[in-house]
Formats: sequence, C-alpha cells, structure tokens
Amino acid sequence: MPAAPSGKPASAPPEGPDPATVAGIGEFGLIAALTGDHGRPGTTLLGPGDDAAVVAAPDARVVATTDVLVEGVHFRLDWSTPEQVGRKAAAVNLADIAAMGATPTALLVGLACPPTTPTATVVAMGTALRAEAESAGADVVGGDVTSGPVIVLAITALGSLGGRPPVTRAGARPGDVVALCGDLGRAAAGLAVLSRGFRSPREFVEAQRVPAPPYAAGRQAALTGATAMIDVSDGLLADLGHVAAASGVVIDVAMPPVPARMAEVGSALGVDPAVWLLTGGEDHALAATFPPGTALPDGWTEMGAVRHGEPGVLVAGRLYDPEVPPGWEHFGGS
Amino acid sequence: MPAAPSGKPASAPPEGPDPATVAGIGEFGLIAALTGDHGRPGTTLLGPGDDAAVVAAPDARVVATTDVLVEGVHFRLDWSTPEQVGRKAAAVNLADIAAMGATPTALLVGLACPPTTPTATVVAMGTALRAEAESAGADVVGGDVTSGPVIVLAITALGSLGGRPPVTRAGARPGDVVALCGDLGRAAAGLAVLSRGFRSPREFVEAQRVPAPPYAAGRQAALTGATAMIDVSDGLLADLGHVAAASGVVIDVAMPPVPARMAEVGSALGVDPAVWLLTGGEDHALAATFPPGTALPDGWTEMGAVRHGEPGVLVAGRLYDPEVPPGWEHFGGS
Repeated sequence: MPAAPSGKPASAPPEGPDPATVAGIGEFGLIAALTGDHGRPGTTLLGPGDDAAVVAAPDARVVATTDVLVEGVHFRLDWSTPEQVGRKAAAVNLADIAAMGATPTALLVGLACPPTTPTATVVAMGTALRAEAESAGADVVGGDVTSGPVIVLAITALGSLGGRPPVTRAGARPGDVVALCGDLGRAAAGLAVLSRGFRSPREFVEAQRVPAPPYAAGRQAALTGATAMIDVSDGLLADLGHVAAASGVVIDVAMPPVPARMAEVGSALGVDPAVWLLTGGEDHALAATFPPGTALPDGWTEMGAVRHGEPGVLVAGRLYDPEVPPGWEHFGGS
Repeated sequence: MPAAPSGKPASAPPEGPDPATVAGIGEFGLIAALTGDHGRPGTTLLGPGDDAAVVAAPDARVVATTDVLVEGVHFRLDWSTPEQVGRKAAAVNLADIAAMGATPTALLVGLACPPTTPTATVVAMGTALRAEAESAGADVVGGDVTSGPVIVLAITALGSLGGRPPVTRAGARPGDVVALCGDLGRAAAGLAVLSRGFRSPREFVEAQRVPAPPYAAGRQAALTGATAMIDVSDGLLADLGHVAAASGVVIDVAMPPVPARMAEVGSALGVDPAVWLLTGGEDHALAATFPPGTALPDGWTEMGAVRHGEPGVLVAGRLYDPEVPPGWEHFGGS
C-alpha cells in the first residue's frame, strides 16, 4: 500500500481504524491504491495528487471517452475476481480509444464502494487496472474514491491520434470492405455458461470476465486508411448498425465461422452460437471499413462489404432474425 | 428530448415503453439528454455519438480531473432539485480545472441510475450540468448511462493551460502571500441548516445545493504569477494543509471575518461559525499563494503568509482547535 499522498488528518482518526476495510484506509490511501506509485511514462506531465493531472497531447488534440461499470450490472464479484473487474473496466475504455484509431495515453478512475469493502479488493482492482492500462500504453493519472451502496467504477480514457484524423463511425463508403480484428461471441458464450452455474469451458468464461481488445490494431487500421471503425461492445450487428446509420450505408457481412468449441457449448446449452457471434457484446473486437483493395493489416480479416441502400446490416444478404435460427444455414446454405 | 444518436433497436422495444422513466427512454436517448444537441464550441473537434470525442488541446497538453457524486452521500433529491445536483456535479469538477490555473474545455458524464428514475430528472440534471459547464466555457462532449441502485454522477473535466505551467500545490515558498477568491463556510452553514430540518436562510442552503466557484479566477491567478493553488473542497485548513505538505512550508492565515448573517445562524444553531469558515468544504473557493508584493487580481483577498517550518497550517499563528472555540477570539483578540 503506497503512502497517502497528503496528510489529511480526517482520513486517519487517532483510534487506529481497521486497515482491512476501505473505511480504515481513507480516501487518499485508496486513490493511491488506484493510481499507483510507479515510474510514469513521458506522456504524464503531472501525475496524481494535485487538483488535476496534466497529460501530453502531442498533436494538440485529445481523444476522450467514459464508461461506467456497476456491480451487479456489469460484473459480479462471485463470478469475477477484483483483478478481473479492474482489467475489464480499463479494457472497455481503452478499446473505445483504439476504435478511434488513437493510442491510449491516460486513464482517470472514479470509484464508489461500500465502506465495508475489503481494502485488498480495491488494491487488487487498482493493480490490475493499471496493468491493463500499461499493456495499452496508458498511465492511470488521477482518481476519486467515495462511498456508495455498491461498487461503481467510472473510468475515463484519453488518447492521442498522432496527427491522424479520427476514424469515426460515419466514414464508411459503398464499395469499402468490412473487416474484423479480435474475438466475437466468446464473452456471450461465457455469460451463458456462467448463467447456468457452470465454470467451464474456461476460455469463454475468461472472455466474459476480461475482454482482450486488440488495442494496437486500432492505430494500425487508421494508418492503413480505415474509413470507419467501432469496437464491438453491444454485439456485431448492433455496432455495425451504428456504423451503417452514421455513414448512411448498408453493411453486408458473411456469417462468421462458428469455432468448434463454441459449437459444442451451444449444443450443450441448446443455444444457436450464431446468436453469440452476431449479437453478443463485451468482446471488444474492432470492426472497420477499408477502401476496396486495401491490403489489410495483420490480424484483420475481411468479413463483408459496404453497399448503397437504406442504412442497415445484412448477414449474407438478408436481415438476421434470431427467431429463425440459424436461417443462414437452413435457407441460404454455407 | 433530442433524437437518439443511433438506431440501436434494443433500446426501443415495439411494445412502446413508458418514456416517463429512464427504462423507457433507453441508453442513447439518455446520453443525448446529458450531452445535448446544441451548437458546440470550436474546442469540440468531435462531439458525442462516436466511440470517443476529440477535444482541442492547443498547447499540446490537457488538464484532466474526475469526481464522483453519489446520491445519499453527496446529494439528496429531497434537499436538492435535479437541476441543483447537475450544476453541483459540473461545478466541483470545473473548479479542479480552474485550481490548476487552466480554462475548462470539456466534460464527460457517466451516469448510473435506477431504471425507475423519472426521465424528467435526468433531462433536468443534464440540462443544468451543461449550463454550468457552458458558464465556465466547457462543452459536454461525451457520456455513458447505465442502471444502478442509486444515482451516481461520475464526471471528468478537461482543460487547457494556454501555454502556462500548471499551478500545483507544491510551489508555495516562504515569504509568499496567501490569498482567497470565493466563498468560505457557506455550504457548511447550509448543511447545518438543512440537517436540522430548516430551509433558510436561503443563501446558505443554496450554497450547499450549488457551489459558485470563481472559475475565471484560476486562470487570472496563474497569469498573475500564483506559485501554488487549490480549490477548497475539504475545508480551508485541510486544503491549505495539502498545499503546506506538498510545498514543505507553514501556511499562517488570519481568522476569516465572520459574515453577520453567518454569525446569526451560528448563534441560532449553537455552532461556532469559525468551524464552518475553517473546516467547511464544498464552497470551492480558490486559495493560492503569490510572490510577495504581487498586486492581487480582482476578487482575490490576502489572508495570510507562507513561512519556513514543519509543514502545517496555523490560524493567527497557532494551531486551530475546534474543541476550544473560538480560541482566536478569546485568547488572541481580534
């Protein structure tokens, strides 16, 4: 536990409170647990401990996004460890920065939690959150901690575009190819497994607990000329729907191949895995459109095309209807 | 209610949900209620509706801070209107940007609330929050809305230093003068009034509900050469204590004068108003140190001096002890 960055006397009454719960550690010790006491990257011009941090924005612009995770809504501490919650909270925000074609530079972390929360829970969450941020090149530069009825992690991520225009949702053009980098349906399969009281297959359960967004792929896509990009947080069809609506285009994708292990799990649970692949969120893959003929960067796979028409998303040329699963197989063949 | 920025079908089931509660409005409509649909300032290079916003950072640095407000901890909807909560949530963050000597440029707003929350509550909160941001020159550029057991407002503020160094807590030097801009003790007096079931005097109750930080005074102080600055959120002594600790100095302030109306309220409630003035937080005045001989900018009042010694804060040369109130009057005269 790093030392509290200030001497606020109110946070340490003389009776000697129990440091095993957050009520006994005090606000400043908890903020230090979230923000750490490590060497900081050059982009952090002023780190935690003042009224605000100062972060480098080399091209005179900063990319910024915020996401709130609530215990019982976005995570459960009987399904996930505090480490997994911390990593997930960082990952969902860092993925949004990557989806703009930017490089993450900094996170700010707001935490509300009950006073009875074990200090070890917050320390583990903060340590994992910092590790995930560092894996994407970002530093945790600030935080705020307060009491609340459940654990709420409110994270803001900042990033740098390196002089490039942002890759928005609005730039897809008819003729562009649609490509994907990262996992689909794995977190949804994991949620289905956990919801029925199982703990395996581990690979899907892990994917539900901690997504693995391909952070560097966002910048790579931008460098390669991506015309539109989004991270798949609500499900492939929903998120491509955002791109289609913003760009005023039809996006037509092939049915993604069903991995063998996912097919097995679907079979065991009586669920069509197409639902997970097409509508499952939380994997935070990146989906992007590129001009026709683009040599896609490593890790990206072509999966469809952009066309003129009433904005919307098609799977193999037709509207996907989860009530008629798996239509693409029964009626369209493949 | 602005139109939802995207066509996510899941947010509007065909049955026609009740738009009077947030459950019937959906995530995207709620985010629009927070971020608004108005003309945006030139610093907002890309507004809400994408994976992230893009904000100008003209001097290649961005100032960033986050603060979380929890219903039942930081505000009560039986004591404050949604408008007041929205303004307060913006103000506490904007004040942190001002306290670095920076100009606020943008806010990001994370909101958790019960699905039964009236839509009108969120719309009112969002509208007031934007108005407060605009009064400080900032735009609400992004947001996230999710369900939760109580209302949680997690706000991140960004700002620009305009090429100046940040005014941290660590720059106070022996010989500097200590000065204040803004109110002291008013929010604490208001809390005391509200806690005993009263609703007046209105000026203190209002101060508790919505602080009025002197946003522009932060930049003015920086331009005038302020060596250290902080916003008074935890109480004058506690916050000057942060400056004293970070700068390694003694800060010796005169007892602030007790306004007549505050003396009356203290007398009525049996509370020494010195406690409110010296230890009451939430007014978000700015306290700063300036080199000796500085002509203080408009609105700033000299209140003490910086000295060598074991870091700490003195009131009229001695340690303040709220158990012996009002020592400064009985023993020191004034």
